[in-house]
Amino acid sequence: MAASKLAAEPAKQYYSYNQIHALIQSSIPSFKDVPDALVAISGGGLIPARILRTLLKARYKKTVPIRVIGLQLYDDDAEHIGATGVKRTQWPCADEWGDVRNVLLVDEVDDTRTTLEYAVENLRRDLGKGVSIGVFVVHNKLKEKRGTLPKEVEYIAALDVEDLWVVYPWDAVDIEEHQQKCDEQR
Amino acid sequence: MAASKLAAEPAKQYYSYNQIHALIQSSIPSFKDVPDALVAISGGGLIPARILRTLLKARYKKTVPIRVIGLQLYDDDAEHIGATGVKRTQWPCADEWGDVRNVLLVDEVDDTRTTLEYAVENLRRDLGKGVSIGVFVVHNKLKEKRGTLPKEVEYIAALDVEDLWVVYPWDAVDIEEHQQKCDEQR
Repeated sequence: MAASKLAAEPAKQYYSYNQIHALIQSSIPSFKDVPDALVAISGGGLIPARILRTLLKARYKKTVPIRVIGLQLYDDDAEHIGATGVKRTQWPCADEWGDVRNVLLVDEVDDTRTTLEYAVENLRRDLGKGVSIGVFVVHNKLKEKRGTLPKEVEYIAALDVEDLWVVYPWDAVDIEEHQQKCDEQR
Repeated sequence: MAASKLAAEPAKQYYSYNQIHALIQSSIPSFKDVPDALVAISGGGLIPARILRTLLKARYKKTVPIRVIGLQLYDDDAEHIGATGVKRTQWPCADEWGDVRNVLLVDEVDDTRTTLEYAVENLRRDLGKGVSIGVFVVHNKLKEKRGTLPKEVEYIAALDVEDLWVVYPWDAVDIEEHQQKCDEQR
């Protein structure tokens, strides 16, 4: 009984805030150009985007503005479901994009790629063909993806990981207990 | 020379991510009701709002949706300046608010209160008189404020602090160096 329960639960990988911050910093050398807008996918992308803004500023001496899009995968509460199973909860109005030429989508984890596919398609529709779109995620899970990204989309993952359960610090209730688990896994 | 330079620079108070997370957790008992939407003021409110969502869910068993408003105080880059010196960079469309009755504005620090005053006034205009508006900040600086909040606005600060320079971990470039400064100040 205990053994089968263990087998059914995916192993958890704990990350501290400082580890995430350092991971994002380690990915900065991969940027060919500084984007002129960060597009955070809420809720997962909010914290990585805010950290990324600081690190891009230190590297490129430019404050890159953040815009937020609210997306969630289909669940029972969803009222407006797109064909892909993605619900849109917030999206900037046309004049809020400004004169962007090079945007970078930001999320915490690339799991099935469904949300990222939806976001790229809809950004492309809003921003037109001339705008370059990139994707940045903290973790990319090495697994078969349901969504796909166009070839021209530059893709940066701070870290590739196995298909485990990634536990982010912002999902912790007791942050000291979470930190202890991170320390034990180091 | 060295002494006058020291006198001119406000002292810095460093906070680690874990300290901020624990601070926000300590403020949860102050909530009379669970809000039905968190309104994060970008960029400062993005990280506190995401943490708050987790902690409210643990306490109230409800996922409170996050909406983001982008506000920045007047600077030379600003193109659209309101009378108060606040520039609006992102604001939800009418149908993105949903059926909210009780919203909570979230920011990192209440310094001059100018941004919070602007946000409350403009939320009130959008949401109507029947909607309850609260304010949550991680730090409230004990100083004379330029902005004011209506009496009926419930106000929660996780911590009151002197008028010092609060250094947030998401503004750090080297997070280990930042952590070291936090540890030294404990």
